[in-house]
Amino acid sequence: MKLLIAVIGGDARYLELIRQLQATGNIELNLVGYDKLEQGFTGLNQTEFEELDVEELDIVILPITGTDEEGRVETVFSIEEICITEEWFRRLKDKAVVFTGIANDHLSDLTTKTNTTLIQLLDRDDVAIYNSIPTAEGTIMMAIENTDYTIHSSRVIVTGFGRVGSTVANKFAALGAKVSVATRKSADLARITEMGLTPIELNKLPEHTSECDLLINTIPAMVITKESIQSLPSNAVIIDLASKPGGTDFDYAKQRGIEAILARSLPSIVAPKTAGKILADVITQIITKEKESLGWI
Amino acid sequence: MKLLIAVIGGDARYLELIRQLQATGNIELNLVGYDKLEQGFTGLNQTEFEELDVEELDIVILPITGTDEEGRVETVFSIEEICITEEWFRRLKDKAVVFTGIANDHLSDLTTKTNTTLIQLLDRDDVAIYNSIPTAEGTIMMAIENTDYTIHSSRVIVTGFGRVGSTVANKFAALGAKVSVATRKSADLARITEMGLTPIELNKLPEHTSECDLLINTIPAMVITKESIQSLPSNAVIIDLASKPGGTDFDYAKQRGIEAILARSLPSIVAPKTAGKILADVITQIITKEKESLGWI
Repeated sequence: MKLLIAVIGGDARYLELIRQLQATGNIELNLVGYDKLEQGFTGLNQTEFEELDVEELDIVILPITGTDEEGRVETVFSIEEICITEEWFRRLKDKAVVFTGIANDHLSDLTTKTNTTLIQLLDRDDVAIYNSIPTAEGTIMMAIENTDYTIHSSRVIVTGFGRVGSTVANKFAALGAKVSVATRKSADLARITEMGLTPIELNKLPEHTSECDLLINTIPAMVITKESIQSLPSNAVIIDLASKPGGTDFDYAKQRGIEAILARSLPSIVAPKTAGKILADVITQIITKEKESLGWI
Repeated sequence: MKLLIAVIGGDARYLELIRQLQATGNIELNLVGYDKLEQGFTGLNQTEFEELDVEELDIVILPITGTDEEGRVETVFSIEEICITEEWFRRLKDKAVVFTGIANDHLSDLTTKTNTTLIQLLDRDDVAIYNSIPTAEGTIMMAIENTDYTIHSSRVIVTGFGRVGSTVANKFAALGAKVSVATRKSADLARITEMGLTPIELNKLPEHTSECDLLINTIPAMVITKESIQSLPSNAVIIDLASKPGGTDFDYAKQRGIEAILARSLPSIVAPKTAGKILADVITQIITKEKESLGWI
């Protein structure tokens, strides 16, 4: 039996996802919100949202951004406005699974109310770690573009040693930067030392920023405070990778004339194809591995 | 006795060079061609070209580009036109030394005729190796900007394993690319293998390009021929780092719709400060080490 999958909306990353799903056997794909993209996508079922066989769908793939607070879905490749309602979710069969990148309260509420299985891809460790690679490469690109010195030999402090922080620290070290990592956890400080990098206790960050050319934040909390920015050299650059609104006192950085950049969605900017492949790989893995537990036999 | 140094012309890289020379003791600096740059350079002697005490100069530093075929010197920070003549070189004292980045026939002829010591910085191994670092970082930046996939996991072929080729191969491998290096020399092929990279006999390059996402040339000869371009995947990118006109059949690449970029002077674009520091370090080293042999005691 073929799995019936609807991809509803999405950006450039989804082109690779669609390509890869298409290559997977035993799947029937319905694309909604791709009408501007006829070339190269012939042979695929482009469907109007209203014409979907909702009751028959096994899998629904929403955009990375999920829905907005009114249930609207982002469609980069269409002018069609798509809005997903509680009634719509109720029409899905019990065993249907909905994939999204992230979920706001609205989407979470709807799926809870309607008892719909929702998989938030960006919440998954595997996706976050794979995505940290294009994020780190985008950070490298921004560092090269926004400084007049090489990454090699420059003094880099990374705040946070989670999925993104450790990848970023690794890559900058691989390019010859002198990398320190600031974090709270003692096990992380030990690992940072083991890796040959310099550990910094996060609460002592302000004591170290005077020796810093590039300050890269990955912690989604106010950690790059006035105290830390105060002692940065004047040509230092702050790159904040934490999700909006970042973890930097941008007002104070501006006041001091320190360049501070809040980076947005680097994977989709620097490597949409890879970012799509990551999602496709994980979705395909989930479909394959969890076929039984999800009742798709 | 103070060394009298004249810096005549130059671009952004020379600001760092000047800053560093200024910090060196026992030197008197005369700047020619920096009149647009008063701010931040106060305290330095800005001189008109005609007012230089040519007979007293110990060291003359020309721009990286040397002179053009008429002896004109590039002055990015001035509208003054400066032309260096045979008579001018004759006025220099015997032990004076002239630094330049590169020398064309005109400059070589002039200095030979007038028996002037000319040091071509970019000819030196140390400078070329230091410069290969910003060159490689610029290549990384271009690769990230011009592809929709990550460097990580991508298939990279570097042609040439000289000063630039080996640095580029190293850096891309450090970022997780699958790097092959194509070269003629058997010792290089051995070293490439030792480094954990894949060696390719240069004349067999066309047999390998079908498995290549990024083709980076560092050989200043026509090596990326029609045969090699023919089998590249359609979304592959060629970055040619060899000096003008590069080593790529750009016409054929264009015809096939393959993106091929001739990169120009990456150190001065991506890291003028580091590039200036490299020159400053080497000039300072030469001045310090070879003081005696050059008669500066």
